[in-house]
Amino acid sequence: MKYRYIFVLLVLMTNLVSAQEDESVFIKKIFDNALTNQQAYHNLEYLCTNAPGRLLGTENSLAALEYMKQYFEKTGADSVFLQEFRTPAWKCDSSSVFILPASGKAIRLHSDALGPSPSTPAEGIMAEVIEVKSLAEVEKLGKEVISGKIVFFNRKWDPTFVRTFEGYGDAVDQRAHGPEKAAEYGAIAAIVRSVTNSQDYFPHTGSTRFNDQKIPAIAISTLDADLLSETLIQEPKTRVNVFVKAEDIPETTTFNLIAEIKGNEKPEEIIVIGSHIDAWFNTAGAHDDGAGVVMTSDVLRLFRELNIKNKRTIRIVIYMDEELYQSGGKAYLNYVKEKAEKQYLALESDGGAFTPSMFTVDAQIQVVERISRFQKYLEPYGIDKIKAGWGGVDIGPLKEINVPLMSYGTDSQRYFDMHHSANDTFDKINLRELQLGIGCITSIIYLIDKYGIE
Amino acid sequence: MKYRYIFVLLVLMTNLVSAQEDESVFIKKIFDNALTNQQAYHNLEYLCTNAPGRLLGTENSLAALEYMKQYFEKTGADSVFLQEFRTPAWKCDSSSVFILPASGKAIRLHSDALGPSPSTPAEGIMAEVIEVKSLAEVEKLGKEVISGKIVFFNRKWDPTFVRTFEGYGDAVDQRAHGPEKAAEYGAIAAIVRSVTNSQDYFPHTGSTRFNDQKIPAIAISTLDADLLSETLIQEPKTRVNVFVKAEDIPETTTFNLIAEIKGNEKPEEIIVIGSHIDAWFNTAGAHDDGAGVVMTSDVLRLFRELNIKNKRTIRIVIYMDEELYQSGGKAYLNYVKEKAEKQYLALESDGGAFTPSMFTVDAQIQVVERISRFQKYLEPYGIDKIKAGWGGVDIGPLKEINVPLMSYGTDSQRYFDMHHSANDTFDKINLRELQLGIGCITSIIYLIDKYGIE
Repeated sequence: MKYRYIFVLLVLMTNLVSAQEDESVFIKKIFDNALTNQQAYHNLEYLCTNAPGRLLGTENSLAALEYMKQYFEKTGADSVFLQEFRTPAWKCDSSSVFILPASGKAIRLHSDALGPSPSTPAEGIMAEVIEVKSLAEVEKLGKEVISGKIVFFNRKWDPTFVRTFEGYGDAVDQRAHGPEKAAEYGAIAAIVRSVTNSQDYFPHTGSTRFNDQKIPAIAISTLDADLLSETLIQEPKTRVNVFVKAEDIPETTTFNLIAEIKGNEKPEEIIVIGSHIDAWFNTAGAHDDGAGVVMTSDVLRLFRELNIKNKRTIRIVIYMDEELYQSGGKAYLNYVKEKAEKQYLALESDGGAFTPSMFTVDAQIQVVERISRFQKYLEPYGIDKIKAGWGGVDIGPLKEINVPLMSYGTDSQRYFDMHHSANDTFDKINLRELQLGIGCITSIIYLIDKYGIE
Repeated sequence: MKYRYIFVLLVLMTNLVSAQEDESVFIKKIFDNALTNQQAYHNLEYLCTNAPGRLLGTENSLAALEYMKQYFEKTGADSVFLQEFRTPAWKCDSSSVFILPASGKAIRLHSDALGPSPSTPAEGIMAEVIEVKSLAEVEKLGKEVISGKIVFFNRKWDPTFVRTFEGYGDAVDQRAHGPEKAAEYGAIAAIVRSVTNSQDYFPHTGSTRFNDQKIPAIAISTLDADLLSETLIQEPKTRVNVFVKAEDIPETTTFNLIAEIKGNEKPEEIIVIGSHIDAWFNTAGAHDDGAGVVMTSDVLRLFRELNIKNKRTIRIVIYMDEELYQSGGKAYLNYVKEKAEKQYLALESDGGAFTPSMFTVDAQIQVVERISRFQKYLEPYGIDKIKAGWGGVDIGPLKEINVPLMSYGTDSQRYFDMHHSANDTFDKINLRELQLGIGCITSIIYLIDKYGIE
């Protein structure tokens, strides 16, 4: 009896070990395909080259959706459709910042308006500049000093944060809330140092929040911010001209793009993977987030080519408008609620196509633990951690209906050199780093579907 | 008694915990310095811009040594000196490969001679081409087919290797031993597909080994290799012209550069850290291995600025000639043996300045285990592994006298896109990735010196 027990145990263990081995072999197949296929890379080249500046409401944003729609159709999705919704939008035609020294020639800085900055008059806004390093400093200086001036937010990125997303989190309040704060204290425009650790001439734009009171708001490159700061030390009364030509669009029609492979056992349980196709007006949006679009979309190709029989429905959602008003994610939640669909899990990729490093999971601890058990299969490919953490902006609204969220994380050192700037171009994409990302995302979705997260 | 015992244990544990905390605080100081200082970055810019193509025996190799010598002197090394030695050398003046179609114009390919290729006659070598995928195929085809021909080694890099150094190891035999094998079978020249996964027009050179019989040997870019291969399918009798103007130099005088901070307690025990300053004639040598030079050299600056009182002598060795004959490492071993010095440990950095990933240790298992206990301090900065593995080419000879060897390992995905080619330029260096490397190398050396490896 005792021996029989041990025998049964041994058989069970052998099955377990060989199941694990089989799974490793299959995961290797996924990566072999990912590392030898360049479809996603070519898709990204198309988006960057033929449809840069894919901001909500632009022709390029629609061209990009159309391209991806055709890609899904020819790759064999069971269904592909556009989810229409209406939302406010904004567009920027042009902008400039000039330093106007008391003596000498005007100096044009490298600048891009923040979204949704209002326009200046055609001749721009000309005024003295107050340099500050924080929102608190605006409060401290008070209305008497700030009123009628251009406020220049110039606190540098702190390079001692090892994870650059922490550095970004520490620095971004100047861009996100600086102009609002300056307006509150009577400023007539705001200039913001680009939120990057990079020393270069690329202005990095991004979204800024306003109360009722809006003032023109514009980012300048870090090297130009240093120049402006030095100029103000030499000549504190130096005036600057800020010009923005932009337009609020009260409402426009736009779309999320949805493509599916139906599940074989539980088609009503939907695993959502996706990323955002919009990109600021000044950029090709290669890492942010064309890369996410083509990596998550490639999961469909891989499932088809490897003939994976998914239990649940795998749905790729290409979100519009992560950048400006985050309307795509909200619209998708509305869609899901209307249809009363069950979203089994949602995964987002919005950290660029760098070497894989981790998945983070925003869910109940048991779910985090269950998913982290898949880590062993992905360690050979660079996934050193699967842990509790950030989900994503586009999938964030799904929290309302308790969907477990996940984010694909990459080596972050280079991301903010390019983020929201004209530096975020296709040549910054490394083929292998993109391919490894595709392998990681496909593998985790395959494992989640096969073994479940309960 | 029992309680007193527990009390003592608690005090001991508290001390232990706080020692660990203190150490983490100090490691953070090292990184704070590394992440805010750009001296190494500027040193690398100098090397790449003012002294590219630093091959053994060139003026630029000496200019690079002189620059680093001055850097060490002004950074406060206790001693700085050049270790002179004599060794054979080789130089390449120019080279070319032309496809000569039966009809139509000659097509010039992107090529660079392998070192130490002999010269061709001034008019080049013109012959039919035999494409092979392996050394074994040369043997199989035999002298009758190979004799009098140009052999074209065109096996592609296998992209399914996740670690690119494994991909390199799998592919490099064509370059390292292909021409030798071709010569053995009577070939009159050898063309080698560049050893890279990158699809581009950069020829990647490197060293090739010869027996007595030498034939001109040259690398062409991967895209040109594809073109040549397609051409041969269309017109198998297509002839190619290979031209090389190069020169063997029987003996030359060159140097390793040595800089030290004397130890305070055990100055006779020497911790050696270093990398190689030479770079192929066709490249700025930014990642290979200017990056290693400036990162390891920066340890000296950090020890001085943070006022670290090292027990042992910290010696930075900048090796000449890793690329061609590996003569610098051998010369350094000779120096150590002559002086009967004790080398406590040797660390090399020759994997580029990418995001940190690991240290590998080539030593007795107890030493590996001892060093791997420092991993916890470096995990926040990207060092996920300290494990048994590769030491380095330059420090390799020290194995003869049983020196524990270590290598600094980085994310390897991009390395071979640039390796040994004109693509390995300063703009491919990411400031933060370089700075993180400096922090990691300085920290591990600090810990090894402070706590020992026994």
